[in-house]
Amino acid sequence: MKNIKLLIEYDGSRYKGWQRLKDSDMTIQGKIESVLTELFSRPIEIIGSGRTDAGVHARGQVANFTVKTEKSLLEIHKYLNHYLPQDIVVKEVSEAPERFHSQYNVKKKKYVYCIWNHWIPSAFNRKYSYNVPEHLNIELMEEAANLLIGTHDFIGFSSVKKSNKSTVRTIEEISFIKEDKVLKIVFVGDGFLHNMVRIIVGTLLEIGLKEKKVSYINEIFESKTRSIAGKTAPAQGLFLEEVTY
Amino acid sequence: MKNIKLLIEYDGSRYKGWQRLKDSDMTIQGKIESVLTELFSRPIEIIGSGRTDAGVHARGQVANFTVKTEKSLLEIHKYLNHYLPQDIVVKEVSEAPERFHSQYNVKKKKYVYCIWNHWIPSAFNRKYSYNVPEHLNIELMEEAANLLIGTHDFIGFSSVKKSNKSTVRTIEEISFIKEDKVLKIVFVGDGFLHNMVRIIVGTLLEIGLKEKKVSYINEIFESKTRSIAGKTAPAQGLFLEEVTY
Repeated sequence: MKNIKLLIEYDGSRYKGWQRLKDSDMTIQGKIESVLTELFSRPIEIIGSGRTDAGVHARGQVANFTVKTEKSLLEIHKYLNHYLPQDIVVKEVSEAPERFHSQYNVKKKKYVYCIWNHWIPSAFNRKYSYNVPEHLNIELMEEAANLLIGTHDFIGFSSVKKSNKSTVRTIEEISFIKEDKVLKIVFVGDGFLHNMVRIIVGTLLEIGLKEKKVSYINEIFESKTRSIAGKTAPAQGLFLEEVTY
Repeated sequence: MKNIKLLIEYDGSRYKGWQRLKDSDMTIQGKIESVLTELFSRPIEIIGSGRTDAGVHARGQVANFTVKTEKSLLEIHKYLNHYLPQDIVVKEVSEAPERFHSQYNVKKKKYVYCIWNHWIPSAFNRKYSYNVPEHLNIELMEEAANLLIGTHDFIGFSSVKKSNKSTVRTIEEISFIKEDKVLKIVFVGDGFLHNMVRIIVGTLLEIGLKEKKVSYINEIFESKTRSIAGKTAPAQGLFLEEVTY
């Protein structure tokens, strides 16, 4: 048995997200599994580093699967890119150690949220950013972001229902890159709860627009309630950039 | 009467080109004219700097129209971007001198042709570049491009049928910008015949792939026949970048 690791890029615009669904074949996982199932003439299931929601993009999603095969990695790689839809691209195919698991072995994830911050929108970035026409006070956003760094219970910044699973996560970095009309917010952490990045972005935007104060962050931490935080920023601005093992 | 000048950006993927058509409303000109006709409650026709073909993009198309109005430029600008489809964006609205004509007054045009030059395609650039997986010898392409610079009869590099109109044009610049996996070819000239940039790119690619020699350029000039030149490179790699007056 070989343990094959895939590095995957996708334009999530047309898809219902990463996770395979019974009643739709418009998922990234589903598309990749059908091509692999065709290639190996037996059902193949892949394990992703984690889900991405409908409309979210990836430049560095990781998945793995095990298979008994004589086919070369290059052969698998070429077959995948030949038969996958053009908005899903496999960037690397490699052989991983037997025990490698794309989900359980994640050490860090990097997400980038892309904001088109100008009153004139962009014809080319419209599917890959969220258009915020108003002026943003980035200093205030940075100040608020600093309160989020570290180990906290992020349940107030997530769509997670109360359960026995821990909602404590560590955010190592939140940085802001302003390039002309684009503001990129980079998140690095050991893991992110469902919708966590997008809710944090929505919250930071309210602070950047001066609708809320920096201390709003602490109120959300204390309340532990989703309804207090800012609205979920739209999916099309979010990219899963890198997964580290 | 005011002479209003528009600077326009569009993602040409969904459109049948710039030029209004009787039997389809999927043209850039048609979309802009219907919004303006709605705004001014009377039929508005706009003059573009020139046509772009189906699938071709623009970052700097220019058009103008005359209208008697009290509305401010900002009002017109906001109305346009509010009602235009998201893949057409008006970047600037300004008042031009009475005699300004977007087509007749063109001094120079700049086109950029974008090639994704790697065997692994790109999920995000697939609609905005032409994927050439093979190695390209850029030195040979530059040598061939030098033969195209200057004033020549470009009829052999165009889809123009023989007519009384001059097919002599002047190309001032053809430059190559290689950034990681992307090769951009920049064209500056006083005007370009129908399909001329895409046929030149197709021809340069055959030279870069060593299917043809550099002297192929001279053969096409001498033959004055479209059928001799390389194939027309696909529309999705081409951007009308800038029009100078």
